[in-house]
Amino acid sequence: MELIKKIEAAIRNVPDFPKPGILFKDITPIFLDPNLCNEITNAFCHSFTQTKPDAVLGIESRGFLFGMLLANKLNVPFILARKAGRLPGKTIPQTYQLEYGSATIEVHEGVIKKDWNVLIHDDLLATGGTAQAAAQIVKKCGATVLGFTFVAELAFLNGKQKLINHSNHIQCLIQY
Amino acid sequence: MELIKKIEAAIRNVPDFPKPGILFKDITPIFLDPNLCNEITNAFCHSFTQTKPDAVLGIESRGFLFGMLLANKLNVPFILARKAGRLPGKTIPQTYQLEYGSATIEVHEGVIKKDWNVLIHDDLLATGGTAQAAAQIVKKCGATVLGFTFVAELAFLNGKQKLINHSNHIQCLIQY
Repeated sequence: MELIKKIEAAIRNVPDFPKPGILFKDITPIFLDPNLCNEITNAFCHSFTQTKPDAVLGIESRGFLFGMLLANKLNVPFILARKAGRLPGKTIPQTYQLEYGSATIEVHEGVIKKDWNVLIHDDLLATGGTAQAAAQIVKKCGATVLGFTFVAELAFLNGKQKLINHSNHIQCLIQY
Repeated sequence: MELIKKIEAAIRNVPDFPKPGILFKDITPIFLDPNLCNEITNAFCHSFTQTKPDAVLGIESRGFLFGMLLANKLNVPFILARKAGRLPGKTIPQTYQLEYGSATIEVHEGVIKKDWNVLIHDDLLATGGTAQAAAQIVKKCGATVLGFTFVAELAFLNGKQKLINHSNHIQCLIQY
């Protein structure tokens, strides 16, 4: 079976989560299948053979999962982007807009080196707000966004439009 | 340099986090060193050569990091234990006591199989409340807690006492 079919078969639809009327795409069953996890990690790595990332940045908390596997496979540093207030010590924060209100993510000061090519990973591309904030942090550090990887994309939310200015390498394994 | 020294060298002390008077042990610099990550993962795996775990359960969110690497290395399912309300669909919750009040973690219903030997992972063993709650969830499912792995232990909080009834295999790479 091809990879896309395997991922589609693993993802579970959960109605009315997180609120009534929303059909939530639950990717957690993927992590129960270690072979599928390897195939997904390899598919992400495979698209970065021309320029290898200097680091992988994963967005809390589900972006830590394949983010960590990717960094391990590529043998590069893994950078945590966390919600505001969770990283101890000095951080570089970036606020982004939500449907109602705003949110902030942070990366530790000093971990992203100038001239690094950074790969940004999260599990799901929805509106793109969080991934764009991560890209803005990478740029504040004088580094380059090499690309973005997501397991799934909610294409009707047009998240790619927010990211395309940062890198045109936006890999989403499946679309909804 | 031996592994313990490398880990100690990587961990950063951050004063007054999350509140004044607390010297926080920040393990995130470990993730910037892919070779150290591999050595730590291998050290965890090495202690489970007699009985191989059927699954690794990682506790949100820093427990996802080595938890995922461990599951990958052992080629077994990775189970997410998340804070209440974050997992879509039916879950098995377990509440535990904090210094003031209580908290709840959850695992998806149906993912932990009867008769599985489950390895529980988190980054830090403090009071042991969260890891004990994870162990209680494993037992509710009719499975066995094979052991616990932590990068670091705050030994003066006696967290091991809460866990020893669930498994006497409690691996902490470094102690404070």
